[in-house]
Amino acid sequence: MSIQIRNATIVTMCSAYPEPFQGDVILKGDRIEAIIPATSTEYNSPYPAAPEAEIEVQVIDGTGMAVMPGLINAHQHTPMNLLKGFSDDLKLMDWLEQKMFPAEARMTAEDIYWGSKLSMAEMIRSGTTTFADMYIHMDEIANAVTETGMRASLTRGLVFGDDRSNERIREAIDLVERWQGGADGRITTMFGPHAPYTCPPEKLREVITLAEQYERPIHIHLAETTEEVSIIREKYGQTPTEYLYQLGLFEHLHVMLAHGVHLNQRDIGYLRGMRGGVVHNPVSNLKLGCGIAPIVALQLQGITVGLGTDGAGSATTLDMFAEIKAAAWLQKLDYGDPTRMSAYDTLQLATTGSARLLGLDHEVGTLEAGKKADLILINLNQPHLQPVHHLYSILAYAAVGGDVHTTIVNGQVLMHNRQLLTMDEPTVLHEAHTRAKRIVEGI
Amino acid sequence: MSIQIRNATIVTMCSAYPEPFQGDVILKGDRIEAIIPATSTEYNSPYPAAPEAEIEVQVIDGTGMAVMPGLINAHQHTPMNLLKGFSDDLKLMDWLEQKMFPAEARMTAEDIYWGSKLSMAEMIRSGTTTFADMYIHMDEIANAVTETGMRASLTRGLVFGDDRSNERIREAIDLVERWQGGADGRITTMFGPHAPYTCPPEKLREVITLAEQYERPIHIHLAETTEEVSIIREKYGQTPTEYLYQLGLFEHLHVMLAHGVHLNQRDIGYLRGMRGGVVHNPVSNLKLGCGIAPIVALQLQGITVGLGTDGAGSATTLDMFAEIKAAAWLQKLDYGDPTRMSAYDTLQLATTGSARLLGLDHEVGTLEAGKKADLILINLNQPHLQPVHHLYSILAYAAVGGDVHTTIVNGQVLMHNRQLLTMDEPTVLHEAHTRAKRIVEGI
Repeated sequence: MSIQIRNATIVTMCSAYPEPFQGDVILKGDRIEAIIPATSTEYNSPYPAAPEAEIEVQVIDGTGMAVMPGLINAHQHTPMNLLKGFSDDLKLMDWLEQKMFPAEARMTAEDIYWGSKLSMAEMIRSGTTTFADMYIHMDEIANAVTETGMRASLTRGLVFGDDRSNERIREAIDLVERWQGGADGRITTMFGPHAPYTCPPEKLREVITLAEQYERPIHIHLAETTEEVSIIREKYGQTPTEYLYQLGLFEHLHVMLAHGVHLNQRDIGYLRGMRGGVVHNPVSNLKLGCGIAPIVALQLQGITVGLGTDGAGSATTLDMFAEIKAAAWLQKLDYGDPTRMSAYDTLQLATTGSARLLGLDHEVGTLEAGKKADLILINLNQPHLQPVHHLYSILAYAAVGGDVHTTIVNGQVLMHNRQLLTMDEPTVLHEAHTRAKRIVEGI
Repeated sequence: MSIQIRNATIVTMCSAYPEPFQGDVILKGDRIEAIIPATSTEYNSPYPAAPEAEIEVQVIDGTGMAVMPGLINAHQHTPMNLLKGFSDDLKLMDWLEQKMFPAEARMTAEDIYWGSKLSMAEMIRSGTTTFADMYIHMDEIANAVTETGMRASLTRGLVFGDDRSNERIREAIDLVERWQGGADGRITTMFGPHAPYTCPPEKLREVITLAEQYERPIHIHLAETTEEVSIIREKYGQTPTEYLYQLGLFEHLHVMLAHGVHLNQRDIGYLRGMRGGVVHNPVSNLKLGCGIAPIVALQLQGITVGLGTDGAGSATTLDMFAEIKAAAWLQKLDYGDPTRMSAYDTLQLATTGSARLLGLDHEVGTLEAGKKADLILINLNQPHLQPVHHLYSILAYAAVGGDVHTTIVNGQVLMHNRQLLTMDEPTVLHEAHTRAKRIVEGI
């Protein structure tokens, strides 16, 4: 199977091509076979050449479209989409304790399957091709990933503090053992100690040992709220970052830190040289009134920053184009300087940045021959996206998820002309609606 | 002509109906004839009753849709859409002096006509039914409003400081005399002294006298940047707000103040009791790194706050749903409190708030029998808008302009099923593209 995207404006997000250019993108199997600029003699010629020409070829007309790497949502709790809009405009602890926890306690494995499918429908429709998920009942989510064709980094979230902790760790190990490399390599796994305030030192050490043993990264929340900073200060006399640093988390493991809102200069110093980096979740941080993560300051210290939505339970949206805008806006606001976090910089967060955080930058995050065929086409021929003086500006500041015309993962077309091809959307909507109503009834 | 929207979820934005409800909305001519809850015996019965039944009736199936008042963009510079994305990520003064001013100097009357049409296409497609515009060549914009069917409050922007000032004032008077009440009453007018830093006291007094004489409101920029605050401090030893206050601007005129980012407690005190109020433009303020307007503090003093996008030259988008999100996020961030500026509060900014600022709250901003038939239908049957636990949350935090299915102004359907009915969209896109390229060439 070969897919040939003809006559598109190509945004590689690759330093070799600082400017978008016109051309063709040729996919073969699960990989990008070639990128052919319009200036090339091969441009628009039949491709591949004669000897291989018998393989099935699908041509997608890219006229008036931008083609770019699929977006990578590096921090998600997919099943929480069933609770989207259920508890907005509440204090974080009220949101969590009065609404989210009771609702989540009622979610069955099947609810989690359908909640994650709802998220995948929303993500595919808004141009996300890869996501990192931390939740429970991860088998359900892995099955949904297998079926929908997305790429995912899955993590069993580990909240400690009661008797079932060993069972949870067993589930975390089970996920890694059974699903690492699953779904034709589209599934990777991590270990997921939830956060400094839900993981005591002995448990964190245990998870660190497991991560070393299985050679898997760690996905953890860090310094999301001032309350967390106070709790850890009271418990350990440290900042949350110091707490993790002292436990050796940043020594040699690949670690993905979600949020990182409340980091002081010393905290940032502890992170310098770390493998992995920080996932910025600006919409969730804004909606919960958490603050502005110092992502420019982190980048200035060489720390990788990626982008995520957090669960739809807080962000209410999984549209990475909304996160792209919010990420740029917040740094400009924080510095009082519109030159901070340019359109291109912020598109990098959602592509190359997130890819590095997931340890997948050798496979995804840019359009390059040899990389996995994960890409999206955006229909530019619309009043809110015209005229195109600078395509990066239009993609970062004007485009929204609904402008994505086609979503391709691993060489498979998951959406074309706004139609989902690997999911039955009416069934997903029906299941989501019915289950969501049952879950929240009486809460 | 009667339009009957059947079986929709109705969001009136009217205090009499604090919760959305199922029902029909009946339009007759340019007005809302009736709103019929599903609990009523009249619900879904043919309407109007037999004696009038000969008039033409169009039925719109509202199943799975929310119907709400059309959004009101209270501060715009429509022709600047031709410059969208042309000069992002620059310092405000560089943006203005190196990019916007030279480009605007090249714009012909015809460019302004097509630029404003591009904005109207984008606005209609994203659920805006009314906008307030401050620019030049206002005849062109008034003609475009007449043709497209939108509702608009038009203002000739008055920047003083050179010889042509009297000509500009003559144009401002001409706009009011010729267009007030034009296009079947869809056009209203204001006087538009541009800003404290571009209007010396004697000129401002002259415009105030004109506004009194013609009984028209004033539309002016105020306290957008710290630079403006410094300039006025240096010139007059006052804050920009004090400067306008001393000139008597807030005594009895209806005044619409755009931005109001840098207002201290004393400034807010000067505005207390004013007619009109402040237009919040959060996306533009974020993108230019200006700061956060204290809109909750203003509301606490009884000052009306509306919502606008500013020109697409700075905001890069005219999607009022983006402004709604940004407005809520920024107050939650500023107070570190997610309960501030709820979903409903922020929807009010874009409907009833903006309507009051435009002096049109007796006609638009809510769905009520007798009001003008300005409303939008939003297709809720999509993964990113389901499940609907609380419709206000979904509308404020998840919906985007592209979810608008139908836009109706003054009883006329301007868009149905995403198709513009009063504009030739390909022509608008072609003209916008060609003219935009010519305008910026070499800048």
